[in-house]
Amino acid sequence: MVQGATHNNVTQNKNNDFLTRFKSDLDNINIELKKDLTSNVPLINELSNYLIQSGGKRIRPLLTVLSGRICNIDIDKTLNIAIIFEYLHSATLLHDDVVDESDARRGKKSSNIIWGNNIAVLVGDYLLGKALLNATNAQNMKIMTILANTACTMSEGELLQLQKKADIKITENDYYNMIRKKTAELIASACQTGAFMADVEKEKEEAVYNYGINIGMAFQIIDDALDYISSKDIMGKEPFKDIREKKVTLPLIQAIDKCSENEFKIIKKLFKKETLNNKDVQFITGLIHTYHCVEQTTETAEKFILNAKKCLNIFPQSHARTDMEDIADYIIDRKF
Amino acid sequence: MVQGATHNNVTQNKNNDFLTRFKSDLDNINIELKKDLTSNVPLINELSNYLIQSGGKRIRPLLTVLSGRICNIDIDKTLNIAIIFEYLHSATLLHDDVVDESDARRGKKSSNIIWGNNIAVLVGDYLLGKALLNATNAQNMKIMTILANTACTMSEGELLQLQKKADIKITENDYYNMIRKKTAELIASACQTGAFMADVEKEKEEAVYNYGINIGMAFQIIDDALDYISSKDIMGKEPFKDIREKKVTLPLIQAIDKCSENEFKIIKKLFKKETLNNKDVQFITGLIHTYHCVEQTTETAEKFILNAKKCLNIFPQSHARTDMEDIADYIIDRKF
Repeated sequence: MVQGATHNNVTQNKNNDFLTRFKSDLDNINIELKKDLTSNVPLINELSNYLIQSGGKRIRPLLTVLSGRICNIDIDKTLNIAIIFEYLHSATLLHDDVVDESDARRGKKSSNIIWGNNIAVLVGDYLLGKALLNATNAQNMKIMTILANTACTMSEGELLQLQKKADIKITENDYYNMIRKKTAELIASACQTGAFMADVEKEKEEAVYNYGINIGMAFQIIDDALDYISSKDIMGKEPFKDIREKKVTLPLIQAIDKCSENEFKIIKKLFKKETLNNKDVQFITGLIHTYHCVEQTTETAEKFILNAKKCLNIFPQSHARTDMEDIADYIIDRKF
Repeated sequence: MVQGATHNNVTQNKNNDFLTRFKSDLDNINIELKKDLTSNVPLINELSNYLIQSGGKRIRPLLTVLSGRICNIDIDKTLNIAIIFEYLHSATLLHDDVVDESDARRGKKSSNIIWGNNIAVLVGDYLLGKALLNATNAQNMKIMTILANTACTMSEGELLQLQKKADIKITENDYYNMIRKKTAELIASACQTGAFMADVEKEKEEAVYNYGINIGMAFQIIDDALDYISSKDIMGKEPFKDIREKKVTLPLIQAIDKCSENEFKIIKKLFKKETLNNKDVQFITGLIHTYHCVEQTTETAEKFILNAKKCLNIFPQSHARTDMEDIADYIIDRKF
């Protein structure tokens, strides 16, 4: 559970250690990505290598593989479709870095800083094209439809977020709607596709889809909470980035809900400023800590994780089910 | 034919007048776009209106409609698929404006200047998603495959262009390969899809595809020639933009082929500079005019147009065939 600012390398290593359990699957995913991303265009190869070595955890393709496995099909049936979800995810990261004008991701310089906005945009587009091409290779309209809906929903979510930026009247429901679209749908689609490839009953396909929505929601909520408590050493990016960009996320929504009229007036005044200075940021983070909003946010994420694990009850006990339950816990345990 | 810098409003109006012949088809396309782009996200509606009113000529969806018609199917069979190609085209324009850091398009402020890079990137992504979603609605794997290949090829072409920027060793073949990917494939796919919807023999589908490749090549070659001779009043953007960005296009490739060793040495030296000043640009455009490279480039485009029209010989005479032949001529006649 995320509690206050008590992070250290021990918990981080514990988190990393957890994924070693999936070494064989993750190796297969990386080999498939490397093989599939070879191109005649040298710039694409260079970028592919960068993406592969950039320390992504490949959670989305891993979830496709595990969702297939919980429905009794092996990795060789899901691998080539699983990597589509890494392409979509990487494309989003590349475009997000341009949109957010980021300078760091996962503790490294972000792609737009290394390569320039132009290459980040174009390689993102190329990865979207590759995702589409791999999906057509499967010659299956349902996978195409999942992919199309996911791509549309994700960009709708990103646009909603842009539109609601600096809007302190945003409700918890607006926030849930936004993060479901921008984050949870992709994770849910990755899970759904694994089950769909196994040709199981609709209920089981829906169960892993709902598992994906719930862990996706928790993932984003924890991400937004960590921004208020983590440090650059652990997150790989400066803390308080969201508030500096006037992104209103769950901890702040909850603080606004609880604060006094006078405090709300100050927040309103601060959000009218062009940029927030350190004192402004301190005031807002102060409120969030006073009203225990990081703890409350974390409790919300825990409820989503509980729901996610309940979704798996439809499946008999198996290694794959345990793995998926543990991944749900891992998402809320992570400190980065 | 493009000859020197003798443009005036009469020829421009003549060009605009040509498209009034297609008023009914173009009205239908615009109505379909407006209907299809309505979203719950206000920002998307705002952008849709901007795109619809921004003066795009809708050549690509029109070509899908005409390619269907030359194969004996009516616009109601092609309309909802035709607009996919406008989405792909608009997405490319939005992302290109970010990539090129443009400030004007079609005589108006470009989208990235009005809305910011972030919105240009995200709305481009949304339009790609919409294209994909409309294609899946057709429940046809072949259309999906055409779309997937086109999306991948286009971004490969854009990346190739970025990589070959400021490379004065680029050959005519490199150039043709690049513009085929970045421009001609989309136009060819728009044509091919119209014929495919009509369920015609493979030869006819290939014929309109090849027609599309040829007019697409001519379109880009004329675009690159116009950059050396047109004015901001007519093109809606500053002339000599390519050379200022050190983009090596056909007129310059031909000038490099013909110039003296000493002149080549100077070009080489200029291309090593960070930015070219007005005198540098004057030197290069001077060479291009001395060696009649705009005229030679235009002749090359004319050959592609001749080839395009030859491709249509497989079809009996019809209004649709005449329309497609005239569009080929229109592409080379245009001054903007």
